[in-house]
Amino acid sequence: MDNKSDAKVTPWEVEGIVDYDKLIVEFGVKKVSTREHYLTESITGELHPLLKRGVFYAHRDYDVFLEKYESGESTALYTGRGPSGYVHLGHILPWIFTKWLQDKLNIDLFFEFTDDEKFLYHREYTLDYVRNVTRENILDLISLGFDPKRTHIIIDIEDISYLYELAVRIAKKITFSTIKAVMGFTQSTNIGMIFYPTLQIAVCFLPTELYGRQTYVLIPAAIDQDPYWRLARDIATSLGYPKPAQIHAKFLPGLGIGGKMSSSQPETAIFMTDSPEDVKRKIMNAYTGGQPTAELQRKLGGNPDICPVFKYYEMMFEDDDKKLKERYMDCRGGNLLCGPCKSELANRIISFLEEHQKKRESMRDKIDEYLLRNKF
Amino acid sequence: MDNKSDAKVTPWEVEGIVDYDKLIVEFGVKKVSTREHYLTESITGELHPLLKRGVFYAHRDYDVFLEKYESGESTALYTGRGPSGYVHLGHILPWIFTKWLQDKLNIDLFFEFTDDEKFLYHREYTLDYVRNVTRENILDLISLGFDPKRTHIIIDIEDISYLYELAVRIAKKITFSTIKAVMGFTQSTNIGMIFYPTLQIAVCFLPTELYGRQTYVLIPAAIDQDPYWRLARDIATSLGYPKPAQIHAKFLPGLGIGGKMSSSQPETAIFMTDSPEDVKRKIMNAYTGGQPTAELQRKLGGNPDICPVFKYYEMMFEDDDKKLKERYMDCRGGNLLCGPCKSELANRIISFLEEHQKKRESMRDKIDEYLLRNKF
Repeated sequence: MDNKSDAKVTPWEVEGIVDYDKLIVEFGVKKVSTREHYLTESITGELHPLLKRGVFYAHRDYDVFLEKYESGESTALYTGRGPSGYVHLGHILPWIFTKWLQDKLNIDLFFEFTDDEKFLYHREYTLDYVRNVTRENILDLISLGFDPKRTHIIIDIEDISYLYELAVRIAKKITFSTIKAVMGFTQSTNIGMIFYPTLQIAVCFLPTELYGRQTYVLIPAAIDQDPYWRLARDIATSLGYPKPAQIHAKFLPGLGIGGKMSSSQPETAIFMTDSPEDVKRKIMNAYTGGQPTAELQRKLGGNPDICPVFKYYEMMFEDDDKKLKERYMDCRGGNLLCGPCKSELANRIISFLEEHQKKRESMRDKIDEYLLRNKF
Repeated sequence: MDNKSDAKVTPWEVEGIVDYDKLIVEFGVKKVSTREHYLTESITGELHPLLKRGVFYAHRDYDVFLEKYESGESTALYTGRGPSGYVHLGHILPWIFTKWLQDKLNIDLFFEFTDDEKFLYHREYTLDYVRNVTRENILDLISLGFDPKRTHIIIDIEDISYLYELAVRIAKKITFSTIKAVMGFTQSTNIGMIFYPTLQIAVCFLPTELYGRQTYVLIPAAIDQDPYWRLARDIATSLGYPKPAQIHAKFLPGLGIGGKMSSSQPETAIFMTDSPEDVKRKIMNAYTGGQPTAELQRKLGGNPDICPVFKYYEMMFEDDDKKLKERYMDCRGGNLLCGPCKSELANRIISFLEEHQKKRESMRDKIDEYLLRNKF
C-alpha cells in the first residue's frame, strides 16, 4: 500500500506524508492557478513568495473574492488559532501571508482564538491553562506587525456574546449525522466538541453582522481546516450570508522525516520562544536530503526535494528566487554540504526569533488594542 | 396493553395518561413523604396546598436542601420556561409554588428563559418569534408578584456570557452516547439541541459562581424536566458544585380526556391572555367525571377522581380544604351537577385572569428590574 494514501488530515490530526494533490480531490477544492496569480498581482502589485512558490496552493472562490474586492464590495479576512500550546514556525506561516494580504488589501482581519475547542478536545487541559496559552499566543500573533486598527481578535469563551446567536442559527442547520461525517466524530465525542464547529463557522458571517452589510470573507489557513469551511459554505446562503472563500496552505514540515511541524514532537519543531541554543541544536540534528558522508555528497549531490532544511528556505527564509535556485542547484550538484546549509538556516532563524522575542515582550500591554470587544 | 404504560414523558413531549408512581421508579426519584411536609412546615409555618395535596409529589434531596437552608448555608431557587408560545395555567402552577417558597425562604430565584432551545427545537420558529414570546412570557411570570430584588431572569441567547464557560465545562463531561440515552436524541437531532442541555444545567451552578460560595440550589419544576437534573447531579461533584435538589410537580390536566394542558390543543387549555368568553366556552365544553344526564348524575353521582374540572379546583382554585372536600362529596353524592360546578370554576378563573391581565400590562416597563444582567 502506498504510504501517501495512509495520511490522515483532519482539524485535529495530521499524520503521515500528506499528498496535497490528493487532498484537492478529497476535499473538492481547486488548485491555485496562474489565473489567481495574475488576479492577485494585478491588485497587490506583487506576488508573495508563499503564493508564487505554491505553499498557498488550493482554494475555493479566491478568485471570486478578489473580483468582489476589485468591484468595491465589502470584504474581510478571517483566520485563527487553536491555543493548545506554544506557537511554532508552522503556525505563523499562514499568519505571515495573512498579514501581507491585509497590508495589500487594507481590510479588516478577524482572528479567532478557539479556547473552548482546545479545552474540550484535550482531556487534561484546564481553562486556566488554555487562557494563559491564549494570552501567550496573542503575543506571537501581534508581534508580526498586524495593524491594531484593522485586526480584531475574538476569544471564544470571553467573547461568546458576539457568536452564540449566530451559532444557534448555524447549529439548527446541522444534524449529528452531518457533523459526524464531516468531522469524524463518534458516539464518545463530548457534546461541546459536537457544538464547537458552529463557533468556528460563525466568524465567517460575523463581519456581515458587525458592518451591517453583505461582506465577502477570505480565509487564509492550513488545509486541515477545510471541513469547517465546507459546512460554512453549505449553509451560508440559506442563512443569508455570502459563502466564505478560502485559500489553503500546505504545512511547514517538521525537522524529522515526513509529517508537519508539530508541538507534540518538540525536537523537530522551532518554537517562537526557543533560545538560540535550542534552534542551533534542533536544526543541526535535522533530517536532510543529504548523503551519508561528505565525500558521497560531493560525488552524488543531495536531494533538496525531500529535505526539510531546504523547505524552510523555500517557505520562510529565502525570499530571493535567484538565491533559492542557486541553493537548490548547489545541493543537487554536490557543491553545498548539509553542515553549512543547516548552519546558515540556524543563523537566519535565530536572528528572526531574536527580533520576534524582543517585540513579543513589548506587546504585553498592547493586547487590548487588538480585542474585538474593545472596538465593536 | 395498559394505557398507562404508553405514556411518554420527555422534556419535549408528554403524551398519554401519565402514571406518576411509575415515573418515580423510572426516573429514580423519591416520593415526597410526611417527613418533607414536616420539615417544610417547621420552616415556613404552613404547608402550601400544592404540597399538601401532592401536586409537588416527588423529589431529590428536597429534605437535604431544607436542612442546608436551616443550618444557614447559602441557598437559591432555580426554575425556568421554554418560550414556545403563550403561557397557560399549567405553566404557572409551578411558578405559584416557587413564589410561595421564595416568599417563605426569602432567597434568590434564578429563572431561565431557554429561547435557544425553543428556536432550535421548532423547525418553523424564527429568533424574532422566540424573542417576542420571551418578552410576553416574562410579563406573565412577573405579574405573579415576584420580588424583583430577589428574582433574576436569565435569557439564554442574550445572557450567554454568564453561561458559556460553565456550559463548556459541563459539555466536556457528557458524550453523545450519554445525551442520546438521557434525552432520547437521534442521529438527526441538530447539534444545537445536542449542546443545549449544558445551558439548562449551567444555571444549577451559576449561583455558586455569582455569590462566590458553595450554594445549594432547589429546582421546583414539572417532572418532565428531570433528565436535565439527573445529568446535573451526575457531574456536579466533579465540577466542584453541590448537587442541585429538585421538587417535582404533576401536570395540570387539559380540559379534554387525559393528558396535560398543552398549547398545541388550545381549546383544552386556558391561556393567561384568554378573554372571559374564551374561558367560559372552554370550561363549559370541558370533559368531566359526570354522568350523561342530570337525572343519572343525581342518581349515581359524578366521579371527581377523573374530572379535570375538579382537578382545577384542587390544584389551583380552591385553597380551602374543607370546601374542596365538600365539593368532592357533593359531586360523588349527586348533589352537585357539572353545569354549576363548571360555571363556578369559569367565574373563578375569569376573575383570576382579569386581575392578572391588568397587572400584566402594567409590568411592561418593569422587565428590566428582573434581568440578571442588570444586577450581577
